Amino acid sequence: MIKVEKLLINYKTLEQFKRFKEYGNQELSMLEDLQSNIVENDSESPFYGVYYGNTLVSRMSLYKVQKKYDQYFEPAQDYLVLWKLEVLPDFRGKGYGKALVEFAKQYQLPIKTNPRINSQGFWEKMGFQKAKYDMERDLGENPLIWMPEGVEEKEV
Amino acid sequence: MIKVEKLLINYKTLEQFKRFKEYGNQELSMLEDLQSNIVENDSESPFYGVYYGNTLVSRMSLYKVQKKYDQYFEPAQDYLVLWKLEVLPDFRGKGYGKALVEFAKQYQLPIKTNPRINSQGFWEKMGFQKAKYDMERDLGENPLIWMPEGVEEKEV
Repeated sequence: MIKVEKLLINYKTLEQFKRFKEYGNQELSMLEDLQSNIVENDSESPFYGVYYGNTLVSRMSLYKVQKKYDQYFEPAQDYLVLWKLEVLPDFRGKGYGKALVEFAKQYQLPIKTNPRINSQGFWEKMGFQKAKYDMERDLGENPLIWMPEGVEEKEV
Repeated sequence: MIKVEKLLINYKTLEQFKRFKEYGNQELSMLEDLQSNIVENDSESPFYGVYYGNTLVSRMSLYKVQKKYDQYFEPAQDYLVLWKLEVLPDFRGKGYGKALVEFAKQYQLPIKTNPRINSQGFWEKMGFQKAKYDMERDLGENPLIWMPEGVEEKEV
Protein backbone atom coordinates (compact mmCIF):
# COMPACT_ATOMS: atom_id res chain seq x y z
CA MET A 1 0.00 0.00 0.00
CA ILE A 2 1.61 3.25 -1.19
CA LYS A 3 0.78 6.30 0.91
CA VAL A 4 0.69 9.70 -0.78
CA GLU A 5 1.41 12.66 1.51
CA LYS A 6 1.04 16.39 1.10
CA LEU A 7 4.55 17.78 1.53
CA LEU A 8 5.34 20.61 3.89
CA ILE A 9 7.82 23.37 3.10
CA ASN A 10 10.79 22.92 5.38
CA TYR A 11 14.53 22.60 4.92
CA LYS A 12 14.34 18.80 5.05
CA THR A 13 11.79 18.61 2.21
CA LEU A 14 13.69 21.14 0.13
CA GLU A 15 16.90 19.17 0.63
CA GLN A 16 15.15 16.00 -0.59
CA PHE A 17 13.94 17.89 -3.68
CA LYS A 18 17.55 18.32 -4.82
CA ARG A 19 17.65 14.64 -5.76
CA PHE A 20 15.01 15.16 -8.44
CA LYS A 21 16.02 16.14 -11.94
CA GLU A 22 13.33 18.75 -12.35
CA TYR A 23 14.65 20.94 -9.57
CA GLY A 24 14.16 24.50 -10.75
CA ASN A 25 12.67 27.91 -10.14
CA GLN A 26 9.73 26.55 -8.20
CA GLU A 27 11.94 24.91 -5.55
CA LEU A 28 14.36 27.83 -5.42
CA SER A 29 11.46 30.20 -4.91
CA MET A 30 10.15 28.04 -2.05
CA LEU A 31 13.60 28.04 -0.45
CA GLU A 32 13.87 31.82 -0.71
CA ASP A 33 10.40 32.28 0.76
CA LEU A 34 11.37 30.08 3.70
CA GLN A 35 14.71 31.82 4.24
CA SER A 36 13.16 35.27 4.21
CA ASN A 37 10.22 34.20 6.40
CA ILE A 38 7.70 34.92 3.65
CA VAL A 39 6.35 31.48 4.50
CA GLU A 40 6.59 29.77 7.86
CA ASN A 41 8.37 26.49 8.39
CA ASP A 42 6.06 23.55 7.62
CA SER A 43 3.71 25.63 5.46
CA GLU A 44 1.66 23.71 2.94
CA SER A 45 3.24 23.27 -0.46
CA PRO A 46 1.74 22.38 -3.84
CA PHE A 47 3.78 19.14 -3.74
CA TYR A 48 2.66 15.63 -2.92
CA GLY A 49 5.03 12.73 -2.49
CA VAL A 50 5.69 9.18 -1.38
CA TYR A 51 8.30 8.28 1.22
CA TYR A 52 10.17 5.01 1.40
CA GLY A 53 11.52 5.08 4.93
CA ASN A 54 13.02 8.56 5.24
CA THR A 55 13.57 9.00 1.52
CA LEU A 56 11.22 10.92 -0.70
CA VAL A 57 11.07 8.59 -3.73
CA SER A 58 8.42 10.25 -5.89
CA ARG A 59 6.70 13.59 -6.06
CA MET A 60 4.46 15.81 -8.14
CA SER A 61 3.29 19.42 -8.03
CA LEU A 62 -0.46 19.96 -8.32
CA TYR A 63 -2.29 23.26 -8.77
CA LYS A 64 -5.95 24.06 -9.28
CA VAL A 65 -6.78 26.47 -12.10
CA GLN A 66 -10.05 28.35 -11.80
CA LYS A 67 -12.94 27.81 -14.17
CA LYS A 68 -12.65 31.33 -15.60
CA TYR A 69 -9.18 30.45 -16.97
CA ASP A 70 -10.24 27.07 -18.37
CA GLN A 71 -9.44 26.85 -22.09
CA TYR A 72 -9.36 23.05 -22.31
CA PHE A 73 -12.62 21.49 -21.15
CA GLU A 74 -16.33 21.43 -21.94
CA PRO A 75 -18.17 22.51 -19.85
CA ALA A 76 -15.60 25.00 -18.53
CA GLN A 77 -14.66 24.14 -14.96
CA ASP A 78 -11.95 24.14 -12.33
CA TYR A 79 -9.17 21.79 -13.36
CA LEU A 80 -5.84 20.56 -12.03
CA VAL A 81 -2.41 21.10 -13.54
CA LEU A 82 -0.03 18.31 -12.63
CA TRP A 83 3.70 18.75 -13.18
CA LYS A 84 7.10 17.62 -11.94
CA LEU A 85 5.87 14.06 -11.59
CA GLU A 86 9.10 12.21 -11.03
CA VAL A 87 10.26 8.97 -9.43
CA LEU A 88 13.89 8.55 -8.34
CA PRO A 89 15.68 6.15 -10.73
CA ASP A 90 16.15 3.30 -8.20
CA PHE A 91 12.44 3.25 -7.39
CA ARG A 92 10.90 3.19 -10.86
CA GLY A 93 8.44 0.54 -12.05
CA LYS A 94 7.07 -0.02 -8.56
CA GLY A 95 3.88 2.04 -8.77
CA TYR A 96 5.17 5.20 -7.07
CA GLY A 97 4.32 7.36 -10.09
CA LYS A 98 0.96 5.70 -10.67
CA ALA A 99 -0.01 6.26 -7.01
CA LEU A 100 0.50 10.00 -7.41
CA VAL A 101 -1.55 10.21 -10.60
CA GLU A 102 -4.36 8.20 -9.02
CA PHE A 103 -4.24 10.51 -6.02
CA ALA A 104 -4.77 13.48 -8.35
CA LYS A 105 -7.62 11.74 -10.18
CA GLN A 106 -9.61 11.16 -7.01
CA TYR A 107 -10.57 14.86 -6.95
CA GLN A 108 -12.71 14.05 -10.01
CA LEU A 109 -11.55 17.21 -11.77
CA PRO A 110 -10.04 17.23 -15.24
CA ILE A 111 -6.24 17.16 -15.22
CA LYS A 112 -3.75 18.72 -17.59
CA THR A 113 -0.08 17.86 -17.74
CA ASN A 114 2.78 18.79 -20.07
CA PRO A 115 4.84 15.63 -20.17
CA ARG A 116 8.57 15.34 -20.50
CA ILE A 117 9.85 13.87 -23.70
CA ASN A 118 9.61 10.04 -23.73
CA SER A 119 7.02 9.68 -20.98
CA GLN A 120 4.08 9.36 -23.39
CA GLY A 121 3.65 5.62 -22.75
CA PHE A 122 3.20 6.12 -19.03
CA TRP A 123 0.56 8.80 -19.50
CA GLU A 124 -1.38 6.70 -21.98
CA LYS A 125 -1.52 3.87 -19.46
CA MET A 126 -2.85 6.40 -16.95
CA GLY A 127 -5.72 7.26 -19.34
CA PHE A 128 -4.38 10.60 -20.56
CA GLN A 129 -4.81 11.74 -24.16
CA LYS A 130 -3.25 14.44 -26.31
CA ALA A 131 -5.13 17.72 -26.34
CA LYS A 132 -5.71 19.04 -29.85
CA TYR A 133 -2.84 21.43 -30.42
CA ASP A 134 -3.73 25.12 -30.43
CA MET A 135 -0.62 27.22 -30.87
CA GLU A 136 -1.88 30.41 -29.25
CA ARG A 137 -2.99 28.50 -26.19
CA ASP A 138 -0.33 25.83 -25.94
CA LEU A 139 2.80 27.53 -27.28
CA GLY A 140 5.71 25.34 -26.18
CA GLU A 141 3.59 22.69 -24.51
CA ASN A 142 2.42 19.27 -25.63
CA PRO A 143 -0.52 19.07 -23.26
CA LEU A 144 -2.02 15.77 -22.23
CA ILE A 145 -5.41 15.74 -20.56
CA TRP A 146 -7.51 13.39 -18.48
CA MET A 147 -11.22 13.87 -18.00
CA PRO A 148 -13.61 12.36 -15.49
CA GLU A 149 -16.99 11.17 -16.73
CA GLY A 150 -19.24 13.90 -18.13
CA VAL A 151 -16.38 16.14 -19.25
CA GLU A 152 -15.23 16.61 -22.83
CA GLU A 153 -12.36 18.29 -24.55
CA LYS A 154 -13.21 21.80 -25.71
CA GLU A 155 -13.22 22.31 -29.47
CA VAL A 156 -10.36 24.58 -30.55
CA MET B 1 27.91 33.47 -42.23
CA ILE B 2 24.90 31.55 -40.92
CA LYS B 3 21.63 32.27 -42.70
CA VAL B 4 18.38 31.99 -40.76
CA GLU B 5 15.31 31.20 -42.88
CA LYS B 6 11.61 31.28 -42.18
CA LEU B 7 10.44 27.72 -42.77
CA LEU B 8 7.49 26.89 -44.96
CA ILE B 9 5.00 24.16 -44.16
CA ASN B 10 5.48 21.41 -46.72
CA TYR B 11 6.09 17.69 -46.59
CA LYS B 12 9.83 18.17 -46.98
CA THR B 13 10.08 20.50 -43.96
CA LEU B 14 7.87 18.26 -41.85
CA GLU B 15 10.02 15.27 -42.76
CA GLN B 16 13.13 17.15 -41.64
CA PHE B 17 11.43 17.98 -38.33
CA LYS B 18 11.35 14.27 -37.46
CA ARG B 19 15.09 14.37 -36.80
CA PHE B 20 14.60 16.77 -33.89
CA LYS B 21 13.97 15.42 -30.42
CA GLU B 22 11.21 17.87 -29.61
CA TYR B 23 8.91 16.60 -32.32
CA GLY B 24 5.44 16.72 -30.85
CA ASN B 25 1.89 18.00 -31.07
CA GLN B 26 2.89 21.16 -32.87
CA GLU B 27 4.45 19.29 -35.79
CA LEU B 28 1.70 16.67 -35.90
CA SER B 29 -0.89 19.40 -36.01
CA MET B 30 0.92 21.10 -38.91
CA LEU B 31 1.04 17.77 -40.77
CA GLU B 32 -2.69 17.20 -40.27
CA ASP B 33 -3.50 20.73 -41.41
CA LEU B 34 -1.48 20.14 -44.57
CA GLN B 35 -3.01 16.73 -45.25
CA SER B 36 -6.55 18.01 -44.85
CA ASN B 37 -5.89 21.18 -46.87
CA ILE B 38 -6.55 23.44 -43.88
CA VAL B 39 -3.30 25.10 -44.86
CA GLU B 40 -1.85 25.25 -48.35
CA ASN B 41 1.49 23.76 -49.26
CA ASP B 42 4.33 26.23 -48.51
CA SER B 43 2.27 28.25 -46.02
CA GLU B 44 4.20 30.25 -43.48
CA SER B 45 5.05 28.46 -40.26
CA PRO B 46 6.11 29.75 -36.85
CA PHE B 47 9.45 27.98 -37.37
CA TYR B 48 12.81 29.41 -38.36
CA GLY B 49 15.82 27.31 -39.19
CA VAL B 50 19.31 27.02 -40.60
CA TYR B 51 20.17 24.68 -43.45
CA TYR B 52 23.56 23.11 -44.03
CA GLY B 53 23.30 22.00 -47.65
CA ASN B 54 19.92 20.27 -47.82
CA THR B 55 19.81 19.41 -44.13
CA LEU B 56 17.93 21.46 -41.58
CA VAL B 57 20.48 21.54 -38.75
CA SER B 58 18.80 23.87 -36.25
CA ARG B 59 15.38 25.31 -35.70
CA MET B 60 13.17 27.21 -33.31
CA SER B 61 9.50 28.13 -33.04
CA LEU B 62 8.72 31.78 -32.41
CA TYR B 63 5.36 33.32 -31.57
CA LYS B 64 4.32 36.86 -30.72
CA VAL B 65 2.10 37.28 -27.65
CA GLN B 66 -0.01 40.42 -27.56
CA LYS B 67 0.49 43.15 -25.01
CA LYS B 68 -2.87 42.49 -23.35
CA TYR B 69 -1.64 39.02 -22.33
CA ASP B 70 1.77 40.22 -21.09
CA GLN B 71 2.34 39.16 -17.48
CA TYR B 72 6.15 39.38 -17.56
CA PHE B 73 7.35 42.81 -18.58
CA GLU B 74 7.22 46.44 -17.50
CA PRO B 75 5.85 48.34 -19.33
CA ALA B 76 3.45 45.69 -20.65
CA GLN B 77 4.08 45.10 -24.35
CA ASP B 78 4.05 42.59 -27.18
CA TYR B 79 6.66 39.93 -26.56
CA LEU B 80 8.02 36.81 -28.25
CA VAL B 81 7.86 33.25 -26.98
CA LEU B 82 10.74 31.17 -28.28
CA TRP B 83 10.61 27.39 -27.99
CA LYS B 84 11.87 24.19 -29.60
CA LEU B 85 15.29 25.71 -30.11
CA GLU B 86 17.33 22.70 -31.07
CA VAL B 87 20.49 21.90 -32.98
CA LEU B 88 21.09 18.41 -34.40
CA PRO B 89 23.80 16.64 -32.34
CA ASP B 90 26.46 16.57 -35.10
CA PHE B 91 26.17 20.32 -35.63
CA ARG B 92 26.40 21.61 -32.06
CA GLY B 93 28.95 24.16 -30.88
CA LYS B 94 29.13 25.84 -34.29
CA GLY B 95 26.87 28.83 -33.65
CA TYR B 96 23.68 27.42 -35.19
CA GLY B 97 21.72 27.89 -31.97
CA LYS B 98 23.17 31.31 -31.26
CA ALA B 99 22.25 32.49 -34.77
CA LEU B 100 18.61 31.67 -34.13
CA VAL B 101 18.50 33.46 -30.78
CA GLU B 102 20.18 36.53 -32.29
CA PHE B 103 17.65 36.45 -35.09
CA ALA B 104 14.84 36.57 -32.51
CA LYS B 105 16.52 39.40 -30.60
CA GLN B 106 16.69 41.65 -33.63
CA TYR B 107 12.95 42.33 -33.35
CA GLN B 108 13.85 44.31 -30.19
CA LEU B 109 10.93 42.79 -28.29
CA PRO B 110 11.31 41.01 -24.96
CA ILE B 111 11.65 37.24 -25.30
CA LYS B 112 10.45 34.47 -23.02
CA THR B 113 11.60 30.87 -23.23
CA ASN B 114 11.05 27.78 -21.09
CA PRO B 115 14.37 25.98 -21.38
CA ARG B 116 14.94 22.28 -21.40
CA ILE B 117 16.76 20.89 -18.41
CA ASN B 118 20.54 21.43 -18.64
CA SER B 119 20.50 24.21 -21.19
CA GLN B 120 20.80 26.98 -18.59
CA GLY B 121 24.44 27.76 -19.47
CA PHE B 122 23.60 28.42 -23.10
CA TRP B 123 20.79 30.81 -22.23
CA GLU B 124 22.94 32.73 -19.77
CA LYS B 125 25.54 33.27 -22.48
CA MET B 126 22.72 34.58 -24.66
CA GLY B 127 21.87 37.18 -21.99
CA PHE B 128 18.73 35.52 -20.63
CA GLN B 129 17.87 35.57 -16.92
CA LYS B 130 15.46 33.65 -14.73
CA ALA B 131 12.07 35.26 -14.29
CA LYS B 132 11.00 35.47 -10.65
CA TYR B 133 8.87 32.39 -10.15
CA ASP B 134 5.14 32.98 -9.79
CA MET B 135 3.31 29.69 -9.46
CA GLU B 136 -0.09 30.83 -10.73
CA ARG B 137 1.49 32.32 -13.80
CA ASP B 138 4.31 29.90 -14.47
CA LEU B 139 2.95 26.53 -13.26
CA GLY B 140 5.23 23.90 -14.74
CA GLU B 141 7.57 26.35 -16.41
CA ASN B 142 11.00 27.69 -15.48
CA PRO B 143 10.80 30.81 -17.62
CA LEU B 144 13.90 32.63 -18.77
CA ILE B 145 13.55 36.12 -20.16
CA TRP B 146 15.57 38.54 -22.23
CA MET B 147 14.79 42.24 -22.39
CA PRO B 148 15.93 44.92 -24.82
CA GLU B 149 16.97 48.27 -23.39
CA GLY B 150 14.21 50.19 -21.62
CA VAL B 151 12.27 47.10 -20.57
CA GLU B 152 12.19 45.64 -17.06
CA GLU B 153 10.83 42.54 -15.46
CA LYS B 154 7.40 43.05 -13.98
CA GLU B 155 7.19 42.73 -10.19
CA VAL B 156 5.23 39.63 -9.17
